[in-house]
Amino acid sequence: MRDQNIRIEKATTLKEKPDPTTLEFGTLFTDHMFILDYTEELGWHDGRIVPYGPIELDPSATSLHYGQTVFEGLKAYVTKDDEVQLFRPDQNVARLNRSSERLRIPDLDVDYSTKAIKELVRIDKDWVPKEKGTSLYIRPFIIATEAHLGVSPSKNYKFIVILSPVGAYYKEGINPVKIAVENEYVRAVEGGTGEAKTGGNYAASLVATEIVSKKGFAQVLWLDGVEKKYIEEVGSMNVFFKINGEIITPDLHGSILPGITRDSVIKMLEHWDLPVIERRISMQEVYDAHQNGTLEEAFGTGTAAVISPIGQLTWNNEDMIINNGQTGKIAKKLYDSLTGIQYGEIEDIFNWTVKID
Amino acid sequence: MRDQNIRIEKATTLKEKPDPTTLEFGTLFTDHMFILDYTEELGWHDGRIVPYGPIELDPSATSLHYGQTVFEGLKAYVTKDDEVQLFRPDQNVARLNRSSERLRIPDLDVDYSTKAIKELVRIDKDWVPKEKGTSLYIRPFIIATEAHLGVSPSKNYKFIVILSPVGAYYKEGINPVKIAVENEYVRAVEGGTGEAKTGGNYAASLVATEIVSKKGFAQVLWLDGVEKKYIEEVGSMNVFFKINGEIITPDLHGSILPGITRDSVIKMLEHWDLPVIERRISMQEVYDAHQNGTLEEAFGTGTAAVISPIGQLTWNNEDMIINNGQTGKIAKKLYDSLTGIQYGEIEDIFNWTVKID
Repeated sequence: MRDQNIRIEKATTLKEKPDPTTLEFGTLFTDHMFILDYTEELGWHDGRIVPYGPIELDPSATSLHYGQTVFEGLKAYVTKDDEVQLFRPDQNVARLNRSSERLRIPDLDVDYSTKAIKELVRIDKDWVPKEKGTSLYIRPFIIATEAHLGVSPSKNYKFIVILSPVGAYYKEGINPVKIAVENEYVRAVEGGTGEAKTGGNYAASLVATEIVSKKGFAQVLWLDGVEKKYIEEVGSMNVFFKINGEIITPDLHGSILPGITRDSVIKMLEHWDLPVIERRISMQEVYDAHQNGTLEEAFGTGTAAVISPIGQLTWNNEDMIINNGQTGKIAKKLYDSLTGIQYGEIEDIFNWTVKID
Repeated sequence: MRDQNIRIEKATTLKEKPDPTTLEFGTLFTDHMFILDYTEELGWHDGRIVPYGPIELDPSATSLHYGQTVFEGLKAYVTKDDEVQLFRPDQNVARLNRSSERLRIPDLDVDYSTKAIKELVRIDKDWVPKEKGTSLYIRPFIIATEAHLGVSPSKNYKFIVILSPVGAYYKEGINPVKIAVENEYVRAVEGGTGEAKTGGNYAASLVATEIVSKKGFAQVLWLDGVEKKYIEEVGSMNVFFKINGEIITPDLHGSILPGITRDSVIKMLEHWDLPVIERRISMQEVYDAHQNGTLEEAFGTGTAAVISPIGQLTWNNEDMIINNGQTGKIAKKLYDSLTGIQYGEIEDIFNWTVKID
């Protein structure tokens, strides 16, 4: 990128900050957003922080018709020393570039994009809520903007970063959820876009989630699209099982999103001398482990919940209660340690946090 | 829909019409567009024809993040009597509703939506190019517009129709293309969104198409995502084979788009006492038929090309030349008959065309 500058146009009137105890997810946005344009002639250019507001798109813009979009999600936290910090932001920008490669979107300069995210958070620093468990959700995303109905990669793009203060995921402490194994709908298949963070994967998931949520489940557990036997993800989280003392998570074989929390969990468990086995794991194996009493824990991992213990897994109308429906020891320890690092309560021996000065 | 009205706000200055001999696909748009809004309170409402121009979206709009979009494509043709007509528009609106169901988008009133499309074409009637083979491409589409980052169906939508004059697909008559069988990337899988016309399917296809087009192929032939053995589609068209006198097309089993040209071809061949067999067909079967000399024809069907003869199919680096690389008799007869009906040159015994009065 030739022009590493970030132009800043501040909002003339600032919005009122919300009550941090009633925050929902992704409904309120801060005073500013970051925008970077791409054209074939100029490459990525004109990085700017401007007042948050509607964007104009030609009705024929590629992203509105052919789903040429990618996105990321990360959070900013206020520490006990009243500093604001991010959790592994370089990993998000690197993954955004990997998603872009699959979607034929030009890649971003990692350093510049990370700087832009930090600069935007710095400007809207007062929006990072301070209540325990709250945070500022950061959504970097790229949309194809060329006014052209041909099915081919767009010639123009916008990289945008928006910020949303979000409430505590667990209002009354970490809490196990009920999950339904999905036998009909498929999220992604090898050779498809499952390992990219792109809109189509989420669009595909809406119907299944809607059906099970009406039956009282929090999410679905996705099986592979080929044999509908092997475990992929849970909702939009990665998933871990503790069976007979071993911790197992599906390996990244092309249709699973390479979660940053997943990676952090693997590194943390390794540090605790609890190596994670990354391999194909079938639903039958999990079922059998439950039947013979060796399924000790199950939990999802993701940016929103950090760790989401699974208290019940329902497969073909059969309910499996896991760990008496309670949060397992490993899940609890991971949750405390990861959030401890994120909120600056315990030492960050992994060097994962990045301060906004 | 309570309010069946269409409000009309005409453009004050009209754009210059393009030279019909140099038209490309989907780069120029007419003077007007149709917009219909959806909210939970009002349902679909405020249908209006307004000057073509940019739309405003909140940067957090669901369609930009989670791909909750559907679309359609059809054409308006000028007949030899200088009338403008559409081809099976009711089928497009019906399919849009089926796509919407998969994507959890509220369905449209079929009569009202068809009326809106006709009214918009009527207002921009002078944009329908008259040169042989040219047409006015009509793109109805729905985008989710709620300003909310939660992964759940949007509460707000826009149904928009835009129009683009397009050139003749075959500048020098119907022409066979070279197609590469795709072994790595997958377009869609059963349980996914393959039978819906939604952005994610097209986003998934970009990389494979880009790779083969650099090798001189027009498109890829998609195999099933489960075994990578069975034939699905060719590019964004349905595909037909004539083997040993029988015409075969893959059956609609969940991952294939139910093409309107596909349906018209089946009905037309039936009328000619050439029944089409809709069944699973493997690439090996097509290969074997080529080897033993019984692969007589292969062609794609879709709105853009109508009929696209396949002159060469390349699988695992092996080139199969079909019908000496020439357009087959069936393909040619279908092309002449379908375009004959579309351009009002032959009698429409199927009652497929709808005049814009």
